[in-house]
Amino acid sequence: MKKFNFPLTPKKIASKLDCTTNFTKKVKLNNVTELHEANEHSVCFFENPKFMDALRETKAGLIFVSKDFDKSLKPNANLLLIDKPYIHFVMLVRTWLNLDNPKMKKSRIDNSAKIASSAFLGKNIVLGSNCVIGENVNIGDDTIIESNCVIQDDVRIGKNCHIFPNTTIYEDCVLKNNIIIHAGCVIGADGFGYIFHNGIHNKIPQVGNVIIEDDVEIGANSAIDRATLGSTIIGKGTKIDNLVQVGHNCKIDENSILCAQTGLAGSTEIGKTVYLAGQVGVAGHLKIDDGAMIGAQSGVTNDVPKDAKLFGSPAIEAGLQKRIMVSEKYLPEVVKEYRKRQKAKDKK
Amino acid sequence: MKKFNFPLTPKKIASKLDCTTNFTKKVKLNNVTELHEANEHSVCFFENPKFMDALRETKAGLIFVSKDFDKSLKPNANLLLIDKPYIHFVMLVRTWLNLDNPKMKKSRIDNSAKIASSAFLGKNIVLGSNCVIGENVNIGDDTIIESNCVIQDDVRIGKNCHIFPNTTIYEDCVLKNNIIIHAGCVIGADGFGYIFHNGIHNKIPQVGNVIIEDDVEIGANSAIDRATLGSTIIGKGTKIDNLVQVGHNCKIDENSILCAQTGLAGSTEIGKTVYLAGQVGVAGHLKIDDGAMIGAQSGVTNDVPKDAKLFGSPAIEAGLQKRIMVSEKYLPEVVKEYRKRQKAKDKK
Amino acid sequence: MKKFNFPLTPKKIASKLDCTTNFTKKVKLNNVTELHEANEHSVCFFENPKFMDALRETKAGLIFVSKDFDKSLKPNANLLLIDKPYIHFVMLVRTWLNLDNPKMKKSRIDNSAKIASSAFLGKNIVLGSNCVIGENVNIGDDTIIESNCVIQDDVRIGKNCHIFPNTTIYEDCVLKNNIIIHAGCVIGADGFGYIFHNGIHNKIPQVGNVIIEDDVEIGANSAIDRATLGSTIIGKGTKIDNLVQVGHNCKIDENSILCAQTGLAGSTEIGKTVYLAGQVGVAGHLKIDDGAMIGAQSGVTNDVPKDAKLFGSPAIEAGLQKRIMVSEKYLPEVVKEYRKRQKAKDKK
Repeated sequence: MKKFNFPLTPKKIASKLDCTTNFTKKVKLNNVTELHEANEHSVCFFENPKFMDALRETKAGLIFVSKDFDKSLKPNANLLLIDKPYIHFVMLVRTWLNLDNPKMKKSRIDNSAKIASSAFLGKNIVLGSNCVIGENVNIGDDTIIESNCVIQDDVRIGKNCHIFPNTTIYEDCVLKNNIIIHAGCVIGADGFGYIFHNGIHNKIPQVGNVIIEDDVEIGANSAIDRATLGSTIIGKGTKIDNLVQVGHNCKIDENSILCAQTGLAGSTEIGKTVYLAGQVGVAGHLKIDDGAMIGAQSGVTNDVPKDAKLFGSPAIEAGLQKRIMVSEKYLPEVVKEYRKRQKAKDKK
Repeated sequence: MKKFNFPLTPKKIASKLDCTTNFTKKVKLNNVTELHEANEHSVCFFENPKFMDALRETKAGLIFVSKDFDKSLKPNANLLLIDKPYIHFVMLVRTWLNLDNPKMKKSRIDNSAKIASSAFLGKNIVLGSNCVIGENVNIGDDTIIESNCVIQDDVRIGKNCHIFPNTTIYEDCVLKNNIIIHAGCVIGADGFGYIFHNGIHNKIPQVGNVIIEDDVEIGANSAIDRATLGSTIIGKGTKIDNLVQVGHNCKIDENSILCAQTGLAGSTEIGKTVYLAGQVGVAGHLKIDDGAMIGAQSGVTNDVPKDAKLFGSPAIEAGLQKRIMVSEKYLPEVVKEYRKRQKAKDKK
Repeated sequence: MKKFNFPLTPKKIASKLDCTTNFTKKVKLNNVTELHEANEHSVCFFENPKFMDALRETKAGLIFVSKDFDKSLKPNANLLLIDKPYIHFVMLVRTWLNLDNPKMKKSRIDNSAKIASSAFLGKNIVLGSNCVIGENVNIGDDTIIESNCVIQDDVRIGKNCHIFPNTTIYEDCVLKNNIIIHAGCVIGADGFGYIFHNGIHNKIPQVGNVIIEDDVEIGANSAIDRATLGSTIIGKGTKIDNLVQVGHNCKIDENSILCAQTGLAGSTEIGKTVYLAGQVGVAGHLKIDDGAMIGAQSGVTNDVPKDAKLFGSPAIEAGLQKRIMVSEKYLPEVVKEYRKRQKAKDKK
């Protein structure tokens, strides 16, 4: 349960929103949580009727409900009636976190951070314990780099980024603004490239970099490889989940989604607002066009046109794939019948 | 080969076990290993007849064999005859490790560890070099946190836990007792949640936590996301392998097994003693009931009943899936025959 | 774009190669990049006709082209005509990096590195900030261990290795010579082994180690588990990509390739020059023989003979798998026809 240091009242919360209210008691609110674990200081939301029992029993101090909510279902509670309760609840949490987190806001360079003399630090930066900041690194204003991160030489990081612990960023990589990198990520490790010659794999030097555009978020323990030459690019607003692999020289455009454990081989291009579900694999040198959606565990082996919906390994049009999947349960008997027919033929 | 500082004799080992012995020479034992690399100080076991050649040639100083073992197969060796030799060998190794590892047993707070003044440390704790322990963190007795781990604010860790290097635990997470977390894990990173609005992905704040119950072990570089609200829960005695992804708000019950590279999307529930083999994917908001077994690389897209055995992507009943897989090799000829038939029809 | 401190001229570069030249202007070269982002100081290569437009527009200071290149296509440029331009370009980059990187060449033990008094360090070693080097560790000449790595007790690392930041190597592991380990790797964590007894999973102590032979490279955030007994072995010249899982007691022979997110369960043997594409899974206790190639996302469930090409989950002979995949799109209509036939029969 997230507890805030900065308390709010139902009235204060309602005052910022286009809502009606049904307040029955005075409470001081200091946390947000799910209905079933709420206390009298909790703000919750109710939208899905399957949680009706939890609603009836909850002790929450304030509940966001939909405009047409029947108040008799939860008498004696503080209700805030609003269009799209969940989205407004989420917005409240975002605002509250900003009100609440002054410690992250104030500059703090831990004395154990190792900062190269040629590094440039902007204003109001946080560098956690044991951070290592290499030569010529440039870090923009309001950026937080947490403990035990290693930022190698010549990396540029923009404003208002948040890099979680134990992350490594290899030399020459560029992170723009408002980027979140979760713990354990590796940005800019060598692409996987060899020339097989004289019976051994000769390493192709990987001398490109990674460029991450504004507003990207990357989940824990993901790996984005540097380009062989040029840049691996993660486009503005793209969101990447945990344990994702992006190969060298990939270019991902704006606002795409890569779910957990998805992997892109080298030099593949992903368009705008593409959706790759969990554990998807995409072969190298392909192009997935804007708006395409690829189902979980699919294996993409060809270019994908705009707005296509694909599924399966290898991935084909999702509707056809589903029809095939439904048909497969009959396959054993179809084959049995076929073999009987063949045997009969052979006898003739 | 594991060498112990604390030597044992065959007699000493046998004295604790319900076994018979055939000892032919005096040896000092100080390691456990496989038959083929054993020396005169090694303890080994023999159970699988496929290693008969290795048995004949081994120089091991003591061999655990089954009760009915024919001693003439390995004359002049020290034999310990016992029911279930492998299990007793394993038990011996466990005991021996405890006898042997005094350095881990004594409290040691490295002077480079950064410990917030509000943190509470129990008795007999080990904190490795460059550990970072945040505000209000509570660490129970006999817990070991190895070098370069980052434990963020308000984390609670119970007794007798062992957290390996370079692990990150995000704020507010709770680890109970006797937990092993291997190197590079990330516990409590933000769940992957956005609301797509006005053409961009708006982050849903992730203000829940992760709760890990007693006796859990988590493999290297795995990621367990914090809940959006409430808690992601890993139940007592559950064992998780390397590179596993557990999405926000998942609840895993007791004694389940998640093999390497398996991934759970958000809000999925896993029952007791469920077995998920390697590289399994489970979609969000599902319930896999107690005792279910899911084959490797399966993709689970529906709720799974108690004790069900599923396989394939999408996962279906394993027996049917296997029959389909066997049938598939005939599919090309079945289709060829079908198309011939259709052509003949079309001509009519 | 990779910039070198050590500039070269076209003439200097040509002097070491079996090539002809067409030099039209004097330039000082200090970087290598792709044609489209080149400046007058860049060296590039041109081989694939699909980049003809980029060639026409590039400002590169020197371009490697094939022997039979038509010079009129790029007048006024410095051309170096050579057999296999890409390979020679790659060789140039390798040589240039060696000329250029004096800072990595000189010994530097950061004063924040924690080095056990019993550790032995060879000549000309680099230890980055906050490295932790355990008891009895032995590190060979010219090896670089970057910041925030943890090398546990009794590890042996050979000559000329490069271990990137935030890597953990568990006790007793052995790395030979010329090995590259990328950031975030975990070498030697416990294998995933339990005995289910009295309703709980009893941990099998993992007292083996990992041995990594010469010339191996391992990608970011990969995990190689230690053996239960004996050793997990990665053979000479084998290359492993990011986020790969190698289970306990696996033996990989020489010069094999494991692409990203591939996983091997325990005790599996991989031969020489085997190729495992991305996201492949291999079950435990199998043997994949020399030269075998396994397609992406395949699931290997049986031994694989020499030079076999397999594909699919479960993996079967690749040619048959592809014929099945092509046939599958007809499956819905084949089944529909079959069911119609069955209904007609049932009516009779």
